[in-house]
Amino acid sequence: MFGITILGNNSALPAHGRHPTAQVITFSDQVFLIDCGEGTQMQLSAYKVKRSRINHIFISHMHGDHYFGLPGLITSMGLLGREMPLHLYAPPELLPILNLQFEAANTTLPFTLHFHAIQSAGNLVEEKKFKVACFPVKHRIPCWGFLFTEKKQPRKLVIEAVIAAGIPTAFYPQLQMGENYTNKNGRVVENETVTVPATPGRSYAFCADTIFDPDLCTVVKGVNLLYHEATYLHDLEERAKARFHTTAFQAGSIAKAADVQRLIIGHFSSKYDHLDDFETEARTAFPSTDLAIEGVTYLVK
Amino acid sequence: MFGITILGNNSALPAHGRHPTAQVITFSDQVFLIDCGEGTQMQLSAYKVKRSRINHIFISHMHGDHYFGLPGLITSMGLLGREMPLHLYAPPELLPILNLQFEAANTTLPFTLHFHAIQSAGNLVEEKKFKVACFPVKHRIPCWGFLFTEKKQPRKLVIEAVIAAGIPTAFYPQLQMGENYTNKNGRVVENETVTVPATPGRSYAFCADTIFDPDLCTVVKGVNLLYHEATYLHDLEERAKARFHTTAFQAGSIAKAADVQRLIIGHFSSKYDHLDDFETEARTAFPSTDLAIEGVTYLVK
Repeated sequence: MFGITILGNNSALPAHGRHPTAQVITFSDQVFLIDCGEGTQMQLSAYKVKRSRINHIFISHMHGDHYFGLPGLITSMGLLGREMPLHLYAPPELLPILNLQFEAANTTLPFTLHFHAIQSAGNLVEEKKFKVACFPVKHRIPCWGFLFTEKKQPRKLVIEAVIAAGIPTAFYPQLQMGENYTNKNGRVVENETVTVPATPGRSYAFCADTIFDPDLCTVVKGVNLLYHEATYLHDLEERAKARFHTTAFQAGSIAKAADVQRLIIGHFSSKYDHLDDFETEARTAFPSTDLAIEGVTYLVK
Repeated sequence: MFGITILGNNSALPAHGRHPTAQVITFSDQVFLIDCGEGTQMQLSAYKVKRSRINHIFISHMHGDHYFGLPGLITSMGLLGREMPLHLYAPPELLPILNLQFEAANTTLPFTLHFHAIQSAGNLVEEKKFKVACFPVKHRIPCWGFLFTEKKQPRKLVIEAVIAAGIPTAFYPQLQMGENYTNKNGRVVENETVTVPATPGRSYAFCADTIFDPDLCTVVKGVNLLYHEATYLHDLEERAKARFHTTAFQAGSIAKAADVQRLIIGHFSSKYDHLDDFETEARTAFPSTDLAIEGVTYLVK
C-alpha cells in the first residue's frame, strides 16, 4: 500500500466544511504527515488514522494554514503517553515557536521530538525501501515540496522455473538483479523466464503552495502521483500570480509537461463553494486529474 | 440578550466529536470570546457566530486547549479584511508567541491588535452597561476566571403616571434613581407608582480550569450563571486534585455554597464517552445544573 489520504483541501480560510492543508502518506507499514493545518488532529480521528502511527511530520512552510494544528497534535501525542521519538522536518522558524508554547504550558513531552530544520534541497529520510526528499517551490515565503520515492526492489524468483532450469542457489542474487544465467553447456536462461519484476519504484510529489512554475516539471518528472495546488480557476490567473498561487488549468499544464501518471489538485480558495469547475478545468490540460477530497485515499500505482 | 454559547466543552484531548474550550458571550449588541481552543474558528462558523462581531477575546491560561485556535482566528480575521481593532486579554506569555507566528508568516494584520497582559485581578473592560473583571483561579500554571457584570441601570419612568402626578421634568433624574417626589402641598408620590425597575445587574462567572477551591465561592457569590469545570466524576477525586481539576460533585458544591442561580459544567475528560453521569452527579449537590453542550446558548436571567 502506497497511498495519500487527504485531511484538508482548502486554502487559508476554512470554509464550506473544508479544512486547511494536511495529508497522510501511508507507505507499507509507515505513516507520514505532510502539513498540519488547524484541526488536523480532529481530522485524523474522523478518518481513523491513529496519531500514534505517525513518526515523521513534514511542514512545507510557515503560513498558519499549514502548521497551526501542529502544537495541538504534538501535545495530544504527549497526553496519550507516546514514547516513540517523533521526527519533525520544517523551516527553522518553527522550533522557537514550539519551544515558547511548550514552555508557557509547562509541558514536558514524554517522547523525544527530533527537529530537522529544512534549509536546502535534498534527502530528509532514507530507509531501505523508500526515501523522502525536499525541493524548493516559489511562494511568498520560503516553501518546500516533498518527493516520496519507493526504491526499486530486487526481482522476485519464480522458484519452480528456477529449479526446472537447474540454476544453482549461489546464482539467485544475480537473478534478482536481472542477470541471465548461462549453464555449463553454454545455454542461456533468459532472466525474465525465471523471475518477475518486484514492485516498481513508485513516486509521489507534493508541491505545497506555489506560483505557476514550469521549472517544477523537471523536479516532478514522471512521478506516479502529483499533488499540485489549484487555489483559483483560470479566470483569476492574475490574482493567482499576485498571491503566488496556481490555477487549476496551470496545475494540469504542469502535470502534462512533467508527464506524470495522475494529478490531484487541492488548496481551493474559500471563495468557491463548489469544486466541480476545478476538475473540469484541470482536465482540459490533463485528463487524469482528480480533486483532493477530504477523507479519500488516492493510491500511488 | 445576555447569553453564553458553548463552542467547546472538552478537556485537552479532543474526542467524541467534542472540542476544546471556547465560548461566546453575547451581551446586548456586543460579542466576546472566552478561550479559543483549536478549531474555534470552525465552531464559530458551524454555529453562525460572525467572527467580525468579536471585539474582545479573553484567554484564561496558556494550556494549548485554551488558545491553540487563536492564531488561526486572528489570521482569518485579517484575511477577511477586518479593520476594527481587536482587544486581546491574556497571560503575558501569549504575545511573543503570536509575534513569532506573524513574523514567520510575514503577516501584517489590517487591523490593530491591542494586547492586554493579565497580571493581577481587576477590571479588564468597563463600559456604560457592563464590566468584565478577571480573578485568579488555582491551576497548574497561572490561570484566570472572568466575571461579566451588567451594571444596574436607572429605573424607567412610566411617563403617563409621571405626568398625571404633576412631577416636573427637572425631577426626572431623581425619579430614575429611585427617589420619591414631594409636591408643593407636601403630598408624597411613591417612586414605584411612577417608575418600573430597569434590567437588574445580571452576572456571569467563568471559572476556567481550577482545582476544587471553596475560596472561589466568595468571588462568584450570587452570580446568575456560573460556568465551572468538571473534568472528572467524583470517583476520580484524587486524580482531579492531582491534575488541578474538579469533579462534577465538587462543581455542584461550589455553586451551592456560592448561592448562584444556575450552574453549567464543562471541560469533560476525553475518557468519558457519555456525559449523563456528570449532570446526575452535579445535581446531587446543586439541582439547577446543566451540561455545557456545544452549540447551545444558555441565557443569563
